[in-house]
Amino acid sequence: MSDSYAASGVDTHREEVALDRLKRWVGATIAFRPEICAKVSLSAFASVLDLGGGRGLAISTDGVGTKLLVAQLAKRYDTVGIDCVAMNANDIVAIGAEPIAMLDYLAIEQVDGDVFEAIGKGLHEGARQAGLAIVGGETSQISEMIRGVRPGSGFDLVGMCAGLIDLARVVDGARIEPGDIVIGIASSGVHSNGLTLARRVLLCGGRQDHEVDQRLGRSPLAELLVPTTIYVRPVLALLHDPGVDVRGLAHITGDGLLNLARVVAPVGFELDALPKPQAVFEVIASQGQVSPAEMYTTFNMGIGFCVVVAPASVARTLQVLASYSQQAQVIGHVVADDQRSVHLPSQGLLGRGRHFQPR
Amino acid sequence: MSDSYAASGVDTHREEVALDRLKRWVGATIAFRPEICAKVSLSAFASVLDLGGGRGLAISTDGVGTKLLVAQLAKRYDTVGIDCVAMNANDIVAIGAEPIAMLDYLAIEQVDGDVFEAIGKGLHEGARQAGLAIVGGETSQISEMIRGVRPGSGFDLVGMCAGLIDLARVVDGARIEPGDIVIGIASSGVHSNGLTLARRVLLCGGRQDHEVDQRLGRSPLAELLVPTTIYVRPVLALLHDPGVDVRGLAHITGDGLLNLARVVAPVGFELDALPKPQAVFEVIASQGQVSPAEMYTTFNMGIGFCVVVAPASVARTLQVLASYSQQAQVIGHVVADDQRSVHLPSQGLLGRGRHFQPR
Repeated sequence: MSDSYAASGVDTHREEVALDRLKRWVGATIAFRPEICAKVSLSAFASVLDLGGGRGLAISTDGVGTKLLVAQLAKRYDTVGIDCVAMNANDIVAIGAEPIAMLDYLAIEQVDGDVFEAIGKGLHEGARQAGLAIVGGETSQISEMIRGVRPGSGFDLVGMCAGLIDLARVVDGARIEPGDIVIGIASSGVHSNGLTLARRVLLCGGRQDHEVDQRLGRSPLAELLVPTTIYVRPVLALLHDPGVDVRGLAHITGDGLLNLARVVAPVGFELDALPKPQAVFEVIASQGQVSPAEMYTTFNMGIGFCVVVAPASVARTLQVLASYSQQAQVIGHVVADDQRSVHLPSQGLLGRGRHFQPR
Repeated sequence: MSDSYAASGVDTHREEVALDRLKRWVGATIAFRPEICAKVSLSAFASVLDLGGGRGLAISTDGVGTKLLVAQLAKRYDTVGIDCVAMNANDIVAIGAEPIAMLDYLAIEQVDGDVFEAIGKGLHEGARQAGLAIVGGETSQISEMIRGVRPGSGFDLVGMCAGLIDLARVVDGARIEPGDIVIGIASSGVHSNGLTLARRVLLCGGRQDHEVDQRLGRSPLAELLVPTTIYVRPVLALLHDPGVDVRGLAHITGDGLLNLARVVAPVGFELDALPKPQAVFEVIASQGQVSPAEMYTTFNMGIGFCVVVAPASVARTLQVLASYSQQAQVIGHVVADDQRSVHLPSQGLLGRGRHFQPR
């Protein structure tokens, strides 16, 4: 069996074309508030609004996606709240802003107090890790619109996050230069992207999903439920450290390491020192016969967040990250390339736009 | 047939109990950011964060709910974006803040470019009416989690809105006094609440849904799709008018006129001059044999937004609203009542908490 992300239900090309039609209308609304949208880019990890006086407000939204179906299969609901905070807070810090507050949107098929409490626990733990307050939210019982793995089990969980930033310190990657160094911070596993493919390969819908897989050291369900790492504190520490010149940041989500190419500077990335990905990625690749190009396009492959720094900042950057117990290493460097390619020489892969291809 | 909101799929009591278990955890996250949460109340229409220097940031989130199923039945998608902006921007202005920006979250079962474009058009029109910019968003293709009226037609549409406010001018209703006057501004119909009950009564799933109903002057589907009124500009005009002392604001959504009781002051409301509701409410009540208590608990009954003003401000308030083409009138007054009752003498109804009951 050969699996691909397109065949797994997320048809990125068609979605992109359709999305452009939506974005044209939505993007035009910036004309209704030109004064606050001075720094807005729809392709950045978060939008930054100009509050005046040099202050900026960063906002972004993201959901947990089909990782919620894994929670339903495992009947374990106390970790997806962490993913919800992570997906949002990591996007906010990836523009250089400090997340301060979040709202949650919980759409449910049926009310279940135990599930609600467990989701709340996860949100609380995520907020603790990210150092933000969840100041409101919406719960919507829309049974006819939501479904899950069992009748009644369906829910969707989405967050919206706000952060503050000094407008002069927005990190959009505009200052990145060839020769800058890319430092990768380890992920905890698949995080909250590529779950459609990961589920299809790893889960069979039976008892095996709950049993320890020797290759993973835990059950497939437990592996896919490992919460997304929250990078807020270590990245804020880097941004505040006088010995670190942070030139670019990337939250590695859907499209994997191609997220690096979202920086403003028209440069390429040569990632020639990638660490060996966690076992889960090897198992998915071999069991699902998924090509390296597909794996690197779909998954974070062990790197959940990237920091691009000036060469002189490397040692201090690694020191700060280590002090926050983050596993981090130099994974490559920036090259002159107005095609914005991401090159993975050890894999023989070249990425442009939203896909890696064999070189 | 007798219909009730509980029987229609929205089980408010059970939801409330379960929700309390979620809220306990989420509410505790305020401890992670006490300095910004000085003014946060989870029961207000929007949360207000303290940005320092007397400035506040208001944020809130809301979805369109099952009105999206009506759009799917009608195969008309260019108005629900207006509802999405309305539900959010009206909540922001109901705390006295000026909406500046929004994010949208669109979860879809299947990609359809025509539907995407129509949704974008509605969001654009809503943003235009509210005077805000939609600066980002998330589109998530999660086929296994979303369903609609036909295979493939499902989607969910949610907004998150941000607004700015002078902290000294937050309108939370704390200054309301007995004798203050309640001015009601007309809704355009059912807006985006009570759709579960409205659909069950008005729609039969056949051709009749598309045919003009003489009592409504249009088809049931067209009636239920009328976009929610956006009250941002007229309410901002009142807030800025030196001749108007705005003491309280209420966006009339789920729980109908009981939203008035969300003001901080421990007062009651005597609404003795309610206008005759639109025909759609009469048709729902008679055709579904829905009691007045249920109708007033579930629907806005013709009033989409309330402004509580000092008696001396009434004439000027009505003048300003008329200049924005809003149909508005005095609907009642504030009374001393620490039970926070909402009394509708003409209906013989007394509302407390989340329900109206015959008196």
